[in-house]
Amino acid sequence: MATKTNPGRFFEDYAVGQVIEHAVPRTIAEGERALYHALYPARHALYSSDVFAAECGLDGSPLDDLAAFHVVFGKTVPDVSLNAVANLGYAEGRWLLPVYPGDTLRSVSEVIGVKENSNGKSGNVYVRTLGLNQNGEIVLDYVRWVMVRKRDAASPAPVPVLPELRKVVPVEDLVIPEGLTFEDYDFTLAGEPHRLSDYEIGEKIDHVDGVTIEEAEHMLATRLWQNTAKVHFDATFREDGKRLIYGGHVISMARALSFNGLANAQMIVALNGGAHANPCFAGDTIKAWSEVLDTAETGAPGVGAIRLRLVATKQGATPFALKGDDGKYLPEVLLDLDYWALMPL
Amino acid sequence: MATKTNPGRFFEDYAVGQVIEHAVPRTIAEGERALYHALYPARHALYSSDVFAAECGLDGSPLDDLAAFHVVFGKTVPDVSLNAVANLGYAEGRWLLPVYPGDTLRSVSEVIGVKENSNGKSGNVYVRTLGLNQNGEIVLDYVRWVMVRKRDAASPAPVPVLPELRKVVPVEDLVIPEGLTFEDYDFTLAGEPHRLSDYEIGEKIDHVDGVTIEEAEHMLATRLWQNTAKVHFDATFREDGKRLIYGGHVISMARALSFNGLANAQMIVALNGGAHANPCFAGDTIKAWSEVLDTAETGAPGVGAIRLRLVATKQGATPFALKGDDGKYLPEVLLDLDYWALMPL
Amino acid sequence: MATKTNPGRFFEDYAVGQVIEHAVPRTIAEGERALYHALYPARHALYSSDVFAAECGLDGSPLDDLAAFHVVFGKTVPDVSLNAVANLGYAEGRWLLPVYPGDTLRSVSEVIGVKENSNGKSGNVYVRTLGLNQNGEIVLDYVRWVMVRKRDAASPAPVPVLPELRKVVPVEDLVIPEGLTFEDYDFTLAGEPHRLSDYEIGEKIDHVDGVTIEEAEHMLATRLWQNTAKVHFDATFREDGKRLIYGGHVISMARALSFNGLANAQMIVALNGGAHANPCFAGDTIKAWSEVLDTAETGAPGVGAIRLRLVATKQGATPFALKGDDGKYLPEVLLDLDYWALMPL
Repeated sequence: MATKTNPGRFFEDYAVGQVIEHAVPRTIAEGERALYHALYPARHALYSSDVFAAECGLDGSPLDDLAAFHVVFGKTVPDVSLNAVANLGYAEGRWLLPVYPGDTLRSVSEVIGVKENSNGKSGNVYVRTLGLNQNGEIVLDYVRWVMVRKRDAASPAPVPVLPELRKVVPVEDLVIPEGLTFEDYDFTLAGEPHRLSDYEIGEKIDHVDGVTIEEAEHMLATRLWQNTAKVHFDATFREDGKRLIYGGHVISMARALSFNGLANAQMIVALNGGAHANPCFAGDTIKAWSEVLDTAETGAPGVGAIRLRLVATKQGATPFALKGDDGKYLPEVLLDLDYWALMPL
Repeated sequence: MATKTNPGRFFEDYAVGQVIEHAVPRTIAEGERALYHALYPARHALYSSDVFAAECGLDGSPLDDLAAFHVVFGKTVPDVSLNAVANLGYAEGRWLLPVYPGDTLRSVSEVIGVKENSNGKSGNVYVRTLGLNQNGEIVLDYVRWVMVRKRDAASPAPVPVLPELRKVVPVEDLVIPEGLTFEDYDFTLAGEPHRLSDYEIGEKIDHVDGVTIEEAEHMLATRLWQNTAKVHFDATFREDGKRLIYGGHVISMARALSFNGLANAQMIVALNGGAHANPCFAGDTIKAWSEVLDTAETGAPGVGAIRLRLVATKQGATPFALKGDDGKYLPEVLLDLDYWALMPL
Repeated sequence: MATKTNPGRFFEDYAVGQVIEHAVPRTIAEGERALYHALYPARHALYSSDVFAAECGLDGSPLDDLAAFHVVFGKTVPDVSLNAVANLGYAEGRWLLPVYPGDTLRSVSEVIGVKENSNGKSGNVYVRTLGLNQNGEIVLDYVRWVMVRKRDAASPAPVPVLPELRKVVPVEDLVIPEGLTFEDYDFTLAGEPHRLSDYEIGEKIDHVDGVTIEEAEHMLATRLWQNTAKVHFDATFREDGKRLIYGGHVISMARALSFNGLANAQMIVALNGGAHANPCFAGDTIKAWSEVLDTAETGAPGVGAIRLRLVATKQGATPFALKGDDGKYLPEVLLDLDYWALMPL
């Protein structure tokens, strides 16, 4: 009659090379797509219209790339971040295959790095997570690292292993969905006339719109991805009585807001990095701005790639301000994300 | 490197005859249907049960007529009402074809009237909007007019053009869905025994039930229709810190509440007119009453038409009170809508 | 021109043997499944993944058993509990057939007992409700009893009839879905290693996690099941301005929370009894604990049955505390439910 509930893993429970098959596979269908549109002001045409997606060479409108990310990520929470002190970073994320209604996703992670902190109370764990569909095909591949508490401060530190992670996914490693073409792309239906050549490296775009966050909404979203971390749901868990909003909710909100100015940055194909700079709580009003970091061609017809910094802020933020003189994120900055998206040339 | 975000059109940007193809087509499926039932206490059997709808001669249960309206309407917001001061009215609305799960909708508007206001700071713009499905068939056709700010008060006034709009869609212009029959209509499953002949012109019905509105709910709904007007989402936008509830949310709430007394007013086929009499905010408790304005036969077997005034009120309203002695809507009246619905003879 | 709205039935309106066909059939599809996952932290693999369900011998992932219950229950509200003072109990509940996306459900109840209270102002009504699918097959069968107000205290008391109800559905009466097998059950994907033989009768499990309830969420849920009782929606209805949360919302929340410790209690096949011990309001934080009441084999390959007490509590509850010295439920106990679920042997 052992304890039946999941206490989560502690730092000592991770070892480089360990493979964790995460639980609870999930079939994604039309309902998840509709909910994504209810939860976020998502308007990118390729994810809104089967017809538009078909004219771009796809079988239909896929599930939003970030929804696929959240589903894959959510499954890792009970095994990776239940006792995490902080979600430290992402790297080398790549979307390898669109997720369509009817697909069933599961997640597998491999521990690729461990390093105890100097205080002896916690350590950093690096995992590479794969999202797989019902055919065993990899739909998503990304690295994240978290700071995890030790069960016992007296337990010995493991040999530190730090994975070599690329700061940016190189253009040649971006995977373009089979058949994708932007040659007959309808800019009118997509909502904006700007093609890749209209954007300059260094250009910054204030996405103008804002959304004030409600408790009910972030909990609906976080549950939808079967992310069960207490801190998002239980107002009695933190001493301040606040529920911390899942960082992925802020990512999706900011990305959806970025439609206004980046309506043609259609598909996300890589996550180069990301930091949840400050916590977000219900009542905060999220706005977003982007900076063009790079542009490139891809082999696919009419399809270019744009590398973007996406910054989410809350009320009180100064336009385009990111860090203070001390090099730290300003308190109104919630998210600093670096990603590649596909855009018509 | 021009500004990439959409500043919206100003009064000067509209001219009679102009055709605007609105962006972001949308595929509607089972998820939107489920969400409609979660957002509104919708119980009309034809929109709840595929079996009931099939017994009425349809291919299955269509998307709620108002959901179709909201989707078509939402697409027009960035082009028509982003700088609108007020949503002034609707006319000549007709549902021409049911929308089924899997359909993809887009919207096109034509400017049919412009008239500058005497203050020289704004003007009224009249548009006729068509909602089209993936086959290019018109599913919805309606006129609305809005008051829009001028970019520059000094710009000259256009020649005023006021469209001739019918106050009521004549019965002979109502389009009955192909195959519709109420000859084997199951009143027990529909929820009420009242047929068209049980309603008298002038009869008023207090729909009894009430729903208190939450911020999360109206934002979920409004996003679902991809209506992105800031005023509904951003608590920092208005000086009073309030988020204005999308008028369509009040329409859907009132229509759903009207089930209790009008369970057999199944399909909405025409919108004769409508006024959003007062703004609605979270915390308001919406109730509804209806007045029978007219009844008619249609060519379809067993199918009659009922013309209804649907009034939504908030807390503090006096039953059936609409306007004060000054001819203005009472402050507790939120909506005054005039529509035709189909009901068993 | 009779009153068109439904005043609900009063105690005098019920007679033993009466059969009530409830209104508004409902087609359930992918959208309802997605919403269930957004509303509750539901993670049982058989209801999350079509692939997992297929490997257990089913045609795909059914609608959550409790969602099926809520849909069937919701239809009875206008006829059974609109004027109910209290929802007193459940008995002899059995799930007879899984509900799949595309199924259309309706409900029929038979009055099986009436007994006036000694105060002469109200009485208890017992109904047996059947949930039926589009083929007329019974998917769910349960008894509930409610206390209903009399229309007129002076009306004579009926001859009291109290149905004989079994306290527990016997194992031999549990209906195992056709084809169900747990012989190749994947415990890793299901989320926990515990099989039936790992649980001891009398064992209690604290499910650890908690969810703080929001108004928007319980109203979305309750509307989704087309349960229209005013008390859940209208903040002006009760004198204290509170909206009472539908008891079924608490049931679903507690059952979903019980995943942590009972991940393999997959399908609910019987509801032996249940009491809504205290009202639940927005702002309450729900947690849950379970007690193993019994275990049994079933004829199906690898499939055992576990009888569980599921208790939902709110903030301030003492672990595993249920009733006070006076034999009454403690004020922090919200729900005491007794059910059978299927679990791998």
